[in-house]
Amino acid sequence: MPGSDLSNIYREYITCLNNQDWLRLGQFVDNDVVHNDRRIGLSGYREMLRKDFRDIPDLHFRIEILVSDPPYVASRLSFHCTPKGNFLGLPVNGKKISFAENVFYEFRSEKICDVRSIIDKLAIEAQLQRR
Amino acid sequence: MPGSDLSNIYREYITCLNNQDWLRLGQFVDNDVVHNDRRIGLSGYREMLRKDFRDIPDLHFRIEILVSDPPYVASRLSFHCTPKGNFLGLPVNGKKISFAENVFYEFRSEKICDVRSIIDKLAIEAQLQRR
Repeated sequence: MPGSDLSNIYREYITCLNNQDWLRLGQFVDNDVVHNDRRIGLSGYREMLRKDFRDIPDLHFRIEILVSDPPYVASRLSFHCTPKGNFLGLPVNGKKISFAENVFYEFRSEKICDVRSIIDKLAIEAQLQRR
Repeated sequence: MPGSDLSNIYREYITCLNNQDWLRLGQFVDNDVVHNDRRIGLSGYREMLRKDFRDIPDLHFRIEILVSDPPYVASRLSFHCTPKGNFLGLPVNGKKISFAENVFYEFRSEKICDVRSIIDKLAIEAQLQRR
């Protein structure tokens, strides 16, 4: 499978998230998906994302860098958003913050089966300290 | 340039780091390299790495996932090491910790010119809290 195909699938997946089109999520995410070493499955993955949108009403995923090399996609995502309360254990409380997430996705049969995500908590801490 | 070439260069770069072979670093890193939005240049990059090894004497870079798609390489690095004092603002103080770093590298003329790195601070916090 050429890398560009996985890139296209990944871009559709991100559009699905931004549209909160949860009925379509199973097109992109494997039933047994693992997220940061936890086998949360498709339903757990959907619930995690729905909670993210509840906690961060203006959440929007923007792809900054996309690297595709089957079976992997690596993506740097950038966010400019306003978490309502605590976020990653930090008292954001409605402040607008900007941060990145560097993520590796492993695909199986064109679906995401393993996710290794790190969010830049240091960058958020620095922004909160400057206020 | 095929992706496998960049992968090979990147693996040599990691060997160079693990050998602390600072005289060779300029083979892999551009003179004007930018690290997390700061233009630190080759000398600043070398100094950053030397400081990392001073602060973490048993530092060793291990590639867990490597994704190559020119001009980018994305790498998930894993570490099992013992920072002597504070690390990312956390009082590690000689405890053995395990954590990952998700990094994007942009290459120009087969040298690293831009680095976007995020270290999993949340994972380290969780390990310190369990003790």
